[in-house]
Amino acid sequence: MSEKPMGVDLSTLSFDIQTLSHALQGGAITPVDVVHEVLRRIDSDPHNAWIAVHDHDVLLQMAETLLAAGPEGKPLYGLPFAVKDNIDLAGLPTTAACPAYAYRPQDSAHVVQRLVEAGAIPIGKTNLDQFATGLNGTRSPYGACHNAFDPRYISGGSSSGSAVSVALGQVSFALGTDTAGSGRVPAAFNNLIGLKPTCGLLSTSGVVPACRSLDTVSIFALTAGDAHRVFGVALSFDPADPYARPAQAHGFDFGQAPTADVRMGVPLKAQLEFFGDAAYAQAFDDAVEQARSLGVQIIEVDVSPLLEAARLLYGGPWVAERYQAIREFIEAQPDAVFPITREITLEGAKPLAADAFAAQYRLKALQREAATLWQQVDVLLTPTAPTHPTIDEMLASPKARNTELGHYTNYMNLLDCAAVAVPSGFVHDLPFGVTLVAPAHQDVPLLRLAEKWQCALQGRAATLGATSQPLPQADVVPAAVPSGQVRVAVCGAHLHGQPLNWQLTQRGGRRVLCTHTAPVYKLYALDSGGAPVKRPGLVKVGPDEGGAAIEVEVWELPVQHFGSFVAGIPAPLGIGTTVLANGSTVPGFICEPDGLRGATDITAYGGWRAWLGRPQ
Amino acid sequence: MSEKPMGVDLSTLSFDIQTLSHALQGGAITPVDVVHEVLRRIDSDPHNAWIAVHDHDVLLQMAETLLAAGPEGKPLYGLPFAVKDNIDLAGLPTTAACPAYAYRPQDSAHVVQRLVEAGAIPIGKTNLDQFATGLNGTRSPYGACHNAFDPRYISGGSSSGSAVSVALGQVSFALGTDTAGSGRVPAAFNNLIGLKPTCGLLSTSGVVPACRSLDTVSIFALTAGDAHRVFGVALSFDPADPYARPAQAHGFDFGQAPTADVRMGVPLKAQLEFFGDAAYAQAFDDAVEQARSLGVQIIEVDVSPLLEAARLLYGGPWVAERYQAIREFIEAQPDAVFPITREITLEGAKPLAADAFAAQYRLKALQREAATLWQQVDVLLTPTAPTHPTIDEMLASPKARNTELGHYTNYMNLLDCAAVAVPSGFVHDLPFGVTLVAPAHQDVPLLRLAEKWQCALQGRAATLGATSQPLPQADVVPAAVPSGQVRVAVCGAHLHGQPLNWQLTQRGGRRVLCTHTAPVYKLYALDSGGAPVKRPGLVKVGPDEGGAAIEVEVWELPVQHFGSFVAGIPAPLGIGTTVLANGSTVPGFICEPDGLRGATDITAYGGWRAWLGRPQ
Repeated sequence: MSEKPMGVDLSTLSFDIQTLSHALQGGAITPVDVVHEVLRRIDSDPHNAWIAVHDHDVLLQMAETLLAAGPEGKPLYGLPFAVKDNIDLAGLPTTAACPAYAYRPQDSAHVVQRLVEAGAIPIGKTNLDQFATGLNGTRSPYGACHNAFDPRYISGGSSSGSAVSVALGQVSFALGTDTAGSGRVPAAFNNLIGLKPTCGLLSTSGVVPACRSLDTVSIFALTAGDAHRVFGVALSFDPADPYARPAQAHGFDFGQAPTADVRMGVPLKAQLEFFGDAAYAQAFDDAVEQARSLGVQIIEVDVSPLLEAARLLYGGPWVAERYQAIREFIEAQPDAVFPITREITLEGAKPLAADAFAAQYRLKALQREAATLWQQVDVLLTPTAPTHPTIDEMLASPKARNTELGHYTNYMNLLDCAAVAVPSGFVHDLPFGVTLVAPAHQDVPLLRLAEKWQCALQGRAATLGATSQPLPQADVVPAAVPSGQVRVAVCGAHLHGQPLNWQLTQRGGRRVLCTHTAPVYKLYALDSGGAPVKRPGLVKVGPDEGGAAIEVEVWELPVQHFGSFVAGIPAPLGIGTTVLANGSTVPGFICEPDGLRGATDITAYGGWRAWLGRPQ
Repeated sequence: MSEKPMGVDLSTLSFDIQTLSHALQGGAITPVDVVHEVLRRIDSDPHNAWIAVHDHDVLLQMAETLLAAGPEGKPLYGLPFAVKDNIDLAGLPTTAACPAYAYRPQDSAHVVQRLVEAGAIPIGKTNLDQFATGLNGTRSPYGACHNAFDPRYISGGSSSGSAVSVALGQVSFALGTDTAGSGRVPAAFNNLIGLKPTCGLLSTSGVVPACRSLDTVSIFALTAGDAHRVFGVALSFDPADPYARPAQAHGFDFGQAPTADVRMGVPLKAQLEFFGDAAYAQAFDDAVEQARSLGVQIIEVDVSPLLEAARLLYGGPWVAERYQAIREFIEAQPDAVFPITREITLEGAKPLAADAFAAQYRLKALQREAATLWQQVDVLLTPTAPTHPTIDEMLASPKARNTELGHYTNYMNLLDCAAVAVPSGFVHDLPFGVTLVAPAHQDVPLLRLAEKWQCALQGRAATLGATSQPLPQADVVPAAVPSGQVRVAVCGAHLHGQPLNWQLTQRGGRRVLCTHTAPVYKLYALDSGGAPVKRPGLVKVGPDEGGAAIEVEVWELPVQHFGSFVAGIPAPLGIGTTVLANGSTVPGFICEPDGLRGATDITAYGGWRAWLGRPQ
């Protein structure tokens, strides 16, 4: 079983999901092959990425069980993944990078279990800033985690080992957690995609809390499409998690819309902060230029409510959540906690409940202010981190430099945003990353836009993690969450520029297609009975009855506004089914037979606009 | 201007909105008459209901300005109302029942301003438990507020004066606030309706906070319809209030549905608590019997998550919000605070932020548990208060007895419920009240059900407040918030019991009408082309073309599910407009002309079911 399979060189095979899954699902390689190769890649890795790896036998047993069952119904069949060691994985202890705190969980965390049921193979547990407190990766008794590109530099954290194991191509993806940036900063520093989902969409059952009201499980992957695939599997409403929320439809998909329709915000120049790192400043300028070259609208926005919320997280009472999370443990065994982690956590014992409420009031006000920002733009582009320190620099000033690292990430869970960290070039041979941000429940549009972004990258940024493997040609990933939009074909007064078009635009409708019907329709100008707005009747006819292709537009409406739109259509019109030129069908205007009394056949004009503009 | 108007005896005129508004809008009396009569009724009132009343001249000026402008566009034209003295009213100080804390607001609170703009006349400011801390009405340096029925008994609080002034018929309605029961307990003790709206729907801008994350403005009125009218005016999303939320559609209206369809929960017997008051226990049994006689389904439910949340409010860290609200003031001038209020408030300085977060985690879990309760019932019926102490009893044990009073009310804002306190009989010549509870945004169904409830009351409970005036015949109040339901007429496979009916029921649809179309339709059995489900075509025809009245059912669907319903209707059918037998129109199935090819005219059967059941 462990020989090299025919036609595939496993030792150089990219572990991105698209590539590896293709080889696995097609049978060119087996899960058993993958396990052997993973263990080879991990063996004596000097990065301190792993805290514990499943025994060889355990992994082989998993792989053989998978192989026997086959890939059917298992979208992640045979894909190896890493689990941050503050997330339960049955069979290995959960340490949260604190050996004295460790426990052996009975079950895997809800989210791990979902991935395993989809066929993924959990290889082991990865290193982290102890109790997920930190954004740098040095705060671990298991050793500072080293950057995948240059071991002198920090990996970023707290999900340090998860990021590094993906960047090194040891696994296909990894789970992290992200309270203040722990799923994004290490993505930026290791040339990865880091999805910080909308809080509550991925279960936190079986996760050691950091700030329990703000924690989310995060996903590291080599491509945006890969992150989307994993997200689609991991996503599920878990009633046992009090902070779980059902996924909501995202509405307008700025990740798939024509880029000219996408409003992308960037912070005001004066609000950008790189703590003296001119190369990072230049790299962000370059990223904005890349956004422009994608064709999106760039809009400078005032991000002061975001920056203030970011300061609230570390300067305010939320650190009390970190204290509360390990209160009994740290009070009983303070010396068992990593020194800097102990210092920070015990600060959380100081604020009063009154202070916590006061900060929550301020946060509510900032959330309201941030909401006005989201009226101006669909998505925000910022640096992921403002600069990239070495491990020595980090250790010399562990609190201040850590605070710097969270400058662009700390606010997001407080303000209920979703975000995807994406690669965006290199600075001094180290990866530079940016983050795409949007309000909660916009995960899918963010992932789509991240995919567009990544596909437009050039040179070294267009390689996968630290593997030098080229980005594979993106294939289509089914949306993890439905849009909640309804399409409707219009052919008359609702066309763009016509008198009833406001009934669509006022409901948030937007045009997605200008086309014609299949050539089986007649178009009538209805007898308006003197009403000011003339209306057409689009009538499907039989073969050889003189039907033609009629001009139509397809519009998209939020489903919650579709009911009132339909209810407002007066007889004899209604919404039925329109057959388009390409043979597809879409809800569209139809006409009752009785309404054709006194109507004029205008089929020969080919459309309502042509008839309106006819010479008279 | 101040003579007694013809035909109306102002001195005995009921001030319920329906009655008074009829007299005002019709011109039988004027706002100036009303002001004179209000001042007469208030004059030397011994209840300690008022802290400050506008000067006679100021009120007359308001009334004359109103009179000059006339009633048009002013739904509350000329109606006098009272404002709890923790809500800003321009021209009078806001004291929160603490003279040393008093300030003169520049503007009226947002919600007061809306009422004034609708023509209501703010008479003055009413007594309260200081800083709205209390449910009893005795904690005020302006004197304990006396019950409207018996001055030896507590009025309830904290909105004590607002309730008593309405009960005494001095004003038509009053604003209170309600954090833990302050808008419901005094309603129960004074034979009133007390609406505690969904938090965030009424602005708290210009309101002295108690627990700012949980405060809501409340409405006292003599009838449920009156409360609904005031709610409709007061309701508005205020962007300046960080806790404001837009009203959401309420969906299924259990207040208007046939009562047999309404699932009303009552606490398990063992969970009822009356602190030894057997008469109160009996009164609640009687209330459950009244519910049964209305025809609703009575379902015993486990309310333990509600009771635990109630204990969290007073026993947990939320008292820190009360401390935070007046932190600087109480630290600077502790002696200026009423003794019991000072004692309670300073307790709020003790809990840690960590405790606050821990309690919020527990609350999140209780919210999840409560959600399962709301899957079992539409509405919950509980006592409003468990017993009714005298003022002396209250003063003898001010903290313990106050905690008792909140037994059935404390949980509601923590668990995001809406509630209406309604009269429900008398106990020892004092009013007994119950509360109807439902999840957030169910205010309108609750008010409708409260109206049904109140109309079914007998004897003294069917009089208004403490006025002995009879309940007026209820008239129709327009819903303050839309239902968000869409109606659709079905005539074939979607009828109840037919093969596609699940497409309605699975979307939460329910049948609201069994009727026929206007007699201008033909019904066809479409050529099914061998498909298993046969489908009809309902086709409107011209006069004298043989149309008939066809059996249809009108169903109601949540608007968010209407889009997928419509999009799933295959050609040649669609949704257009159906004319019903009563001449009204409703969205309903229509058929494209082309679809009638090969169809059979079955109009003579008068409906799809009759045709399916024809002798064959």
